[in-house]
Amino acid sequence: MSTLTHFDESGNARMVDVSDKDATERSATAKGSVYMSPTTLALIRDREVKKGDVLTVAQLAGIMGAKRTPDLIPLCHPLALTSVKVELQLDAARNAVDITATCKLVGKTGVEMEALTAVSVAALTVYDMVKAADKSMRIGDIRLVHKSGGKSGTYEAL
Amino acid sequence: MSTLTHFDESGNARMVDVSDKDATERSATAKGSVYMSPTTLALIRDREVKKGDVLTVAQLAGIMGAKRTPDLIPLCHPLALTSVKVELQLDAARNAVDITATCKLVGKTGVEMEALTAVSVAALTVYDMVKAADKSMRIGDIRLVHKSGGKSGTYEAL
Amino acid sequence: MSTLTHFDESGNARMVDVSDKDATERSATAKGSVYMSPTTLALIRDREVKKGDVLTVAQLAGIMGAKRTPDLIPLCHPLALTSVKVELQLDAARNAVDITATCKLVGKTGVEMEALTAVSVAALTVYDMVKAADKSMRIGDIRLVHKSGGKSGTYEAL
Amino acid sequence: MSTLTHFDESGNARMVDVSDKDATERSATAKGSVYMSPTTLALIRDREVKKGDVLTVAQLAGIMGAKRTPDLIPLCHPLALTSVKVELQLDAARNAVDITATCKLVGKTGVEMEALTAVSVAALTVYDMVKAADKSMRIGDIRLVHKSGGKSGTYEAL
Amino acid sequence: MSTLTHFDESGNARMVDVSDKDATERSATAKGSVYMSPTTLALIRDREVKKGDVLTVAQLAGIMGAKRTPDLIPLCHPLALTSVKVELQLDAARNAVDITATCKLVGKTGVEMEALTAVSVAALTVYDMVKAADKSMRIGDIRLVHKSGGKSGTYEAL
Amino acid sequence: MSTLTHFDESGNARMVDVSDKDATERSATAKGSVYMSPTTLALIRDREVKKGDVLTVAQLAGIMGAKRTPDLIPLCHPLALTSVKVELQLDAARNAVDITATCKLVGKTGVEMEALTAVSVAALTVYDMVKAADKSMRIGDIRLVHKSGGKSGTYEAL
Repeated sequence: MSTLTHFDESGNARMVDVSDKDATERSATAKGSVYMSPTTLALIRDREVKKGDVLTVAQLAGIMGAKRTPDLIPLCHPLALTSVKVELQLDAARNAVDITATCKLVGKTGVEMEALTAVSVAALTVYDMVKAADKSMRIGDIRLVHKSGGKSGTYEAL
Repeated sequence: MSTLTHFDESGNARMVDVSDKDATERSATAKGSVYMSPTTLALIRDREVKKGDVLTVAQLAGIMGAKRTPDLIPLCHPLALTSVKVELQLDAARNAVDITATCKLVGKTGVEMEALTAVSVAALTVYDMVKAADKSMRIGDIRLVHKSGGKSGTYEAL
Repeated sequence: MSTLTHFDESGNARMVDVSDKDATERSATAKGSVYMSPTTLALIRDREVKKGDVLTVAQLAGIMGAKRTPDLIPLCHPLALTSVKVELQLDAARNAVDITATCKLVGKTGVEMEALTAVSVAALTVYDMVKAADKSMRIGDIRLVHKSGGKSGTYEAL
Repeated sequence: MSTLTHFDESGNARMVDVSDKDATERSATAKGSVYMSPTTLALIRDREVKKGDVLTVAQLAGIMGAKRTPDLIPLCHPLALTSVKVELQLDAARNAVDITATCKLVGKTGVEMEALTAVSVAALTVYDMVKAADKSMRIGDIRLVHKSGGKSGTYEAL
Repeated sequence: MSTLTHFDESGNARMVDVSDKDATERSATAKGSVYMSPTTLALIRDREVKKGDVLTVAQLAGIMGAKRTPDLIPLCHPLALTSVKVELQLDAARNAVDITATCKLVGKTGVEMEALTAVSVAALTVYDMVKAADKSMRIGDIRLVHKSGGKSGTYEAL
Repeated sequence: MSTLTHFDESGNARMVDVSDKDATERSATAKGSVYMSPTTLALIRDREVKKGDVLTVAQLAGIMGAKRTPDLIPLCHPLALTSVKVELQLDAARNAVDITATCKLVGKTGVEMEALTAVSVAALTVYDMVKAADKSMRIGDIRLVHKSGGKSGTYEAL
């Protein structure tokens, strides 16, 4: 049970106490995708050359979403992120919009939830902007691909 | 291009004008899952009989997340939701936590983004609470399964 | 158990479904007090004739706090309040700052949580502004004194 | 003094009670500009043909800012906006980025503060994105140009 | 008057300048109670053995509420809390739900307002979840019981 | 193009990476004005001697607005401000309410956006509180007047 650090010895949920942790440079990268029909993907691709395209709106929403993480995830610490980067790309072979987000912090706790939240909010925004054309889209494969800094060391997804 | 309603004729992103739409009862249900190792799923299942369990925290986060939708998704309308319901279940066969969210509104626009956001925030919260034990979890299969009310009629996922 | 409307039949917390309720004019008034030493009360009273006094800051915080209720209380509905009024008065006999808040809505659910939240945030703000002078203050007697509109009828505290 | 509706008879600030007002369609348009050097304006113009340009980011920030109005302006009512539209244009003759925002609501109170807030947040975002190149920019001429709906009738700026 | 640090020499409210203060480990604990009828307390107690009970919802709301302190209290500094812990217990003898919150920070300013806000939001949430059964509940005895770190030294309530 | 630091080499908007910057004491001061008719200015001046006056409400809104900067401006970093000061003064000769805001931080990035946001929100609040009397007010001359700390050195507006 000791691995579920978000509960104290009496079984109450808690924000983990990081007061005594070192402030080190931490980084996390997460990925995810929005899967859709080829027709819908083409709609996004055709917009991409214009200003105000779907990917730009989703990218900004992802950056802003990373900053809202402690408002959304009950036990996340409020953090002063030093960097947020979100990128979206179309993969016609998989009929997917692929999203990658990297967050950084010099602080006492990891930023994987911030990167995962950025990906999720960007994915939801892609969905929102295209939903009038396609109700059967699917958001998936949201996962951590890289994490560095902090006591637990570096993690790289296989 | 007319299907991308979030852009005006000049190509600018916009919040769609729903001033003239009828206020009708609208409902939307979304689903999604967090996939993990059998060991991690067992950790959650073993907590489930105690107060403060992972699923309860995630369920509340999902309900609160639905209310934050217009803060997160740039072109979503602010809405006075009349109902939010979020449920989580363990599926040992698929090593998954399955999440279902239903939102309702008597208003001028659909609530599928609210239901999808509730699922996403609940999934992120499950991830957060178990991430010390398992970094290879994957959030996926977030999709709309039901939508009713409004001009476009009822939608049921196959 | 039927009186705990915030749980469904399976025992899950939920935002109560008010979709089918009538939109009527609803009003709620709450009260509360901050108790302190005579010396501290005098500090506030002496400020009161100047701009930027303690009571004015707390009154505004209470009004803004009422608007944040759905962000703070997990199962509260987001509401379009039509009126918020907060008043603070000094009672030298009881060494107290007394706070009264009234909220109104034309809608489907009551506004007592909004009035109680306004009182609580105003009380916390009084505390914050005077805490350098007095750490033994006490916030108390926060309660509903009036509620009207809706199916359950009018409530007046004794 | 009766014209300062945000104060009650005792001189306390209040959110004006609109419970008894009719819910009508209301619209407001505001304008404003960011003035800068010709060199800085050229930097923005040169970006404009690419994705992720300054004007697109500012336009989205303006739309999202309109939704935050009741969080920012103490005595504004929370509103369920039905439409937000923000446009930005470069005027080389005046070395200005010109911003226009229109908000709509079917409700009990006007939306001029929402339109003015959208313009202000878009202007601040333009400033933020170009400030590394030019610290002497100036935001100005933020004003209401049109307002319709509600008891006070239609207003058009000269 | 020098004890009212939230005003400058001209009488304007201000956020106290802590730029030159040392960043030290700070901790604060606050307490408070919700008083109710024996019948209402029994309703909560009977729920406690199930998932989704009243105390768990209120505990999470308290933790999240602590993070919203700078949004609610006008002159509070935004802080990167390193720990938030909220506990609720039933006291049948006093017909009370007792709430204790402890916040920690390594920073330049104290965290008593965060602890007091956590208690207040948890108390409001208890009230919200039981209000259908009992409108005469009373929130009270919210006070600081411990504070350490910073120039003013350790405070313990008698 | 290198001066537009909010875009990466591929043209995507990003939050600038400040992980490697030094944490130094930073300060920024911004100014702005609300211009109105002499009659409207007199309305504000006549209120000024009472509690709850227009300038006090606007001053608090400005302080709270500074704290919301990262929620409003997409690419701004979340910051733990150590000081916010907002002042408003009437200038009868120019029929103007003049606003000055100073923000401070010990951190890795400048705080000019926080100061400019404080001025903007205070100006919008003045507008809101007087708009029933005067729809032709104009918010203008919002600019940076001082900035110190950080690699780019001290800036003083001419």
